[in-house]
Amino acid sequence: MSPTPKALVLIADGTEEMEFTITYDTLVRGGIIATSAYVSTPPTSPSTSTATTVAAGGQGQVTLINPPTAKCSRGVRILPDIYFEPSGVGFGPDKYDLLVIPGGAKGAETMSNDAGVQKLVREYLDKGKYVGMICAGSLAAKTSNLPNQPLTSHPSVKAELDQSFAYSEDPVVVSGNLVTSRGPGTTFPFALTLVEMLVGPEKRKEITGPMIFPSNTPW
Amino acid sequence: MSPTPKALVLIADGTEEMEFTITYDTLVRGGIIATSAYVSTPPTSPSTSTATTVAAGGQGQVTLINPPTAKCSRGVRILPDIYFEPSGVGFGPDKYDLLVIPGGAKGAETMSNDAGVQKLVREYLDKGKYVGMICAGSLAAKTSNLPNQPLTSHPSVKAELDQSFAYSEDPVVVSGNLVTSRGPGTTFPFALTLVEMLVGPEKRKEITGPMIFPSNTPW
Repeated sequence: MSPTPKALVLIADGTEEMEFTITYDTLVRGGIIATSAYVSTPPTSPSTSTATTVAAGGQGQVTLINPPTAKCSRGVRILPDIYFEPSGVGFGPDKYDLLVIPGGAKGAETMSNDAGVQKLVREYLDKGKYVGMICAGSLAAKTSNLPNQPLTSHPSVKAELDQSFAYSEDPVVVSGNLVTSRGPGTTFPFALTLVEMLVGPEKRKEITGPMIFPSNTPW
Repeated sequence: MSPTPKALVLIADGTEEMEFTITYDTLVRGGIIATSAYVSTPPTSPSTSTATTVAAGGQGQVTLINPPTAKCSRGVRILPDIYFEPSGVGFGPDKYDLLVIPGGAKGAETMSNDAGVQKLVREYLDKGKYVGMICAGSLAAKTSNLPNQPLTSHPSVKAELDQSFAYSEDPVVVSGNLVTSRGPGTTFPFALTLVEMLVGPEKRKEITGPMIFPSNTPW
């Protein structure tokens, strides 16, 4: 574990914005340096210009010139910190301690089918670093050809995974350094589990208080 | 209640990105048309150009030319749907059914001190529309001079509110058409309460299932 852990949180068009945002924010609260990286489909250079026209209240429209934002599953548009390279070069386990693949059907499809992402999933685990997958993001375990092990996902993709893995319906499943989870409603315990694994249980406890979960919340 | 309810969700620099995103996303899941509006400080025209330079993986830096994104409290940058007019014109209860003020200390300060926002808070409630405030966003109840009534907030701003309101520590407090809540950890029940009030309990139940909360989650 490096002194200040670093996390790479992938994002794409169609990413579930709650799963992305809760994870990123909670990791930052945990003292982890989080970086979001936009995975495009089909792979394009970050220098490709994309103009987005948005309504400006009472003043017609303004145009966004590059860089592209991720258009998430329920319409929230998030500007990533950096742009993923199709090769995965520069995003490896030498640079980050944790790789996170959020859900949202379309975003997870983009990420799990990306050869660079698949390579990184294997490299992170081979090097003893951490990988988190949530919701449909767990499909990346299969496309990355990970060995059969305990895993969970959103129920909507269970049928694509339960032949290849020891499928669980627990909210968060820890299998060595691979952490999987189920959906927006399990993202808080997923992210807090990652904080605990990377920084320790004291940090998890420290940051949970100010987040003000109802007293009988089960995490 | 209009046939398809519309929600205006404010956002500003320093907004707590989990509170914003969970609310926006959950409202959309509830069939509500959500629009995010960026409140700037000090008020500037949306035509004011802002260049943001961001790192591009492996390729140096790229520059974002307008419109500005909201730089949220833990570093997530969100591109709003529209830009709030300092006068509040065009954002009234004739156009939207719900006004949401999320927390995050700096963002809530910007919103609660904005005269246009204050006017809208009163207008929405006067017209029988809904207002949601969460975390430090509840400060807007005081700056808008709302009458003494049940209310909650993040504990960090309790001392600014408990002389003026019937302060509660419940996760979600419903006072007529004013709904207040406490922090990131209460945003799911806050947003689901708003869905129930605007669209009905059946819709709340319908959307809760696919979000996959752990079975003993208290909402």
